[in-house]
Amino acid sequence: MRTLDLVLPDTRYPIHIGQGLLDQGGLIARVLPQQKAMIVSNETVAPLYLERLRAALAREGVETLTVVLPDGEDYKDWATLNRIFDALLKAGCERKTALIALGGGVVGDMTGFAAACYQRGVPFVQVPTTLLAQVDSSVGGKTAINHPQGKNMIGAFYQPRAVIADMDLLDTLPDRELSAGLAEVVKYGLLGDAAFFGWLEDNMALLRARDKQALAYAVEHCCRMKADIVGQDEKEQGVRALLNLGHTFGHAIEAGLGFGVWLHGEAVAAGMLLAADTSRALGWISNDDVVRTETLLAAAGLPTRAPDLGAERWMSLMSHDKKAENGSVRYVLLKEIGYAVVANAPTDIVNSILCGKFIQHSLKV
Amino acid sequence: MRTLDLVLPDTRYPIHIGQGLLDQGGLIARVLPQQKAMIVSNETVAPLYLERLRAALAREGVETLTVVLPDGEDYKDWATLNRIFDALLKAGCERKTALIALGGGVVGDMTGFAAACYQRGVPFVQVPTTLLAQVDSSVGGKTAINHPQGKNMIGAFYQPRAVIADMDLLDTLPDRELSAGLAEVVKYGLLGDAAFFGWLEDNMALLRARDKQALAYAVEHCCRMKADIVGQDEKEQGVRALLNLGHTFGHAIEAGLGFGVWLHGEAVAAGMLLAADTSRALGWISNDDVVRTETLLAAAGLPTRAPDLGAERWMSLMSHDKKAENGSVRYVLLKEIGYAVVANAPTDIVNSILCGKFIQHSLKV
Ligand SMILES: NC(=O)c1ccc[n+]([C@@H]2O[C@H](COP(=O)([O-])OP(=O)(O)OC[C@H]3O[C@@H](n4cnc5c(N)ncnc54)[C@H](O)[C@@H]3O)[C@@H](O)[C@H]2O)c1
Ligand SMILES: NC(=O)c1ccc[n+]([C@@H]2O[C@H](COP(=O)([O-])OP(=O)(O)OC[C@H]3O[C@@H](n4cnc5c(N)ncnc54)[C@H](O)[C@@H]3O)[C@@H](O)[C@H]2O)c1
Ligand SMILES: [Zn+2]
Ligand SMILES: [Zn+2]
Repeated sequence: MRTLDLVLPDTRYPIHIGQGLLDQGGLIARVLPQQKAMIVSNETVAPLYLERLRAALAREGVETLTVVLPDGEDYKDWATLNRIFDALLKAGCERKTALIALGGGVVGDMTGFAAACYQRGVPFVQVPTTLLAQVDSSVGGKTAINHPQGKNMIGAFYQPRAVIADMDLLDTLPDRELSAGLAEVVKYGLLGDAAFFGWLEDNMALLRARDKQALAYAVEHCCRMKADIVGQDEKEQGVRALLNLGHTFGHAIEAGLGFGVWLHGEAVAAGMLLAADTSRALGWISNDDVVRTETLLAAAGLPTRAPDLGAERWMSLMSHDKKAENGSVRYVLLKEIGYAVVANAPTDIVNSILCGKFIQHSLKV
Repeated sequence: MRTLDLVLPDTRYPIHIGQGLLDQGGLIARVLPQQKAMIVSNETVAPLYLERLRAALAREGVETLTVVLPDGEDYKDWATLNRIFDALLKAGCERKTALIALGGGVVGDMTGFAAACYQRGVPFVQVPTTLLAQVDSSVGGKTAINHPQGKNMIGAFYQPRAVIADMDLLDTLPDRELSAGLAEVVKYGLLGDAAFFGWLEDNMALLRARDKQALAYAVEHCCRMKADIVGQDEKEQGVRALLNLGHTFGHAIEAGLGFGVWLHGEAVAAGMLLAADTSRALGWISNDDVVRTETLLAAAGLPTRAPDLGAERWMSLMSHDKKAENGSVRYVLLKEIGYAVVANAPTDIVNSILCGKFIQHSLKV
């Protein structure tokens, strides 16, 4: 097991990465203010891992309650969130009762937001069970639910007390979900670490074969970068925005097609390529770099072509993005592989990219 | 106009108290990051003051949008909160668009919570229009909505950028609401300032006649105490709990009778007397002090007798309180007038108080 620390002005917490961690209840028990916790999971993950986690906590003397939500981004809404509040109130849970998220990013984001709001804030712990959640959503304290008019529109910055990333839990993850997580992994290389990007080019096959060592290396690397960035800018007023590489376009894809049609990571993959295309159109990165990016994403099993939403709809969807400012969309773009910046891009260039006029990068498949 | 500053580790903000402030749009405009804001009000307050506030802001170049909610504690719920989110999203509001609460504590609590959650946090300003909101709810950053199973159960600590308390707005406040606000005013005297309690005994008639000078004095005094307490303990881990004097009992009354039957301040008044009774039963305060308290609350036009909820229901309602810990209720009790403490009280004593067995304080009315 390796442990990183995320250090913030007001708090710090450990991110444990390794194998067999689900059974080490002590990693969680030691950060709880009360030997009682509510585990939040979903219908898919609970049958696989809930009883093991409960048993591990019981061995440490922690009494657990559970709430099992329906599975899917469609349920990342107020009505489902309210089921967590109902369960907490029904069980008479107090301000010291912790919430534990056992699941992917959807369960993690909802549990975190519930913890932020219940009685104005109770402790919580993240046990991410998807690769995406391990490298991204469980770390850094962004929590949210969706609004019919926008993804993650209602939420809070609220930090967990600990993150437990157990590689063994990825064994049961569907291939498509593994690939979606790899999109965020590639994102870290692209936005800030060319050497890691190179490592990914060499090791993508191992990762897709779920080699535990390779996965742990990648997760640790991503978490280290995320912890570093969030440590500098918890509330996303500056550098943290770089983590949204591919996300302005990606969110528009998710919303445009209807949440859940494309996976978040798939949309981000296509979105990163649109960002790469835009960066190339601005004369920033080379066509070769765009091709390397596309090749790596394809090797990760990800879509590299965005769906055709129509330029107008694209723009309207993107102007709803949280990064919008005075009505103009701010993009995360690439100066080179491993070096991203936040920038405005001329609307006509972005439009051309979105209409496919500029797309020259695509591999001859 | 007098201005106090609430100083917190991460932020500080002004509380302006005086007359004619609604028309001074500059007080708000200067704290906005963007010359655009959404004013949230309700059906009762909007016809009285909304256009004046909009005009004052327009004079400062601030564009305003509005959302008018139905009036009442019954609407302090998720569905109504969502109307604020709908309006924000429909208008394409961004992270820099501020929310302005124009109303009593219900509008203030909901607007603050909406500001805390919309896109994980946007700026907001409080323009409290009830006495209760001016002396209590608008200051200190507690925001919340109710859950069917408990008042203010879902919320956040989230500070405004400024509070504008204009005494002129109290002219239209119904007498019963003025009295409810006076309950919180009396609370400040009781919990921490015997001299102010004495001032209230001398000036209650002026306050009820809405003498602007007297009101401004009382509001400033209460805000100063609140700012001082919140400055020491933003997240209610210690001294801030004293502000809940009368509230553990009071919340049980509100929930027990159904929200809205008794006003919050009325329930707090009866709750403070139950706390006084309990304190006397413990041998802490004298019967005289209980009588002084009852006399002052009666002079403020407040109920001094709690409704009969039945001891079992009382206890079950109180154990849901946010101040509960390990299942045992923590009370704010009185060592003397002007000196409150957080303490446990033997259940049998509290039970006897609630059953009326100990009640000897009551005035011969
Ligand atoms: N908070 C943040 O900073 C942040 C960052 C990125 C993404 N997100 C959010 O995360 C969400 C996406 O997360 P996700 O990709 O983990 O999706 P997810 O939570 O929906 O999980 C994907 C699927 O895998 C299943 N699953 C999870 N773990 C499994 C396991 N070990 N074995 C078998 N099946 C398993 C889930 O039940 C689900 O069907 C989105 O809502 C996105 O907005 C948040
Ligand atoms: N956040 C906190 O720290 C805190 C503290 C105390 C109370 N509260 C909350 O505050 C709420 C109670 O606040 P409240 O007593 O202001 O109730 P309220 O907001 O319901 O207002 C009382 C009534 O007066 C009307 N009104 C408001 N201003 C008026 C005016 N100037 N002229 C005429 N009518 C006017 C309102 O429309 C309403 O009908 C409760 O929900 C309580 O939980 C919060
Ligand atoms: Zn993402
Ligand atoms: Zn109160």
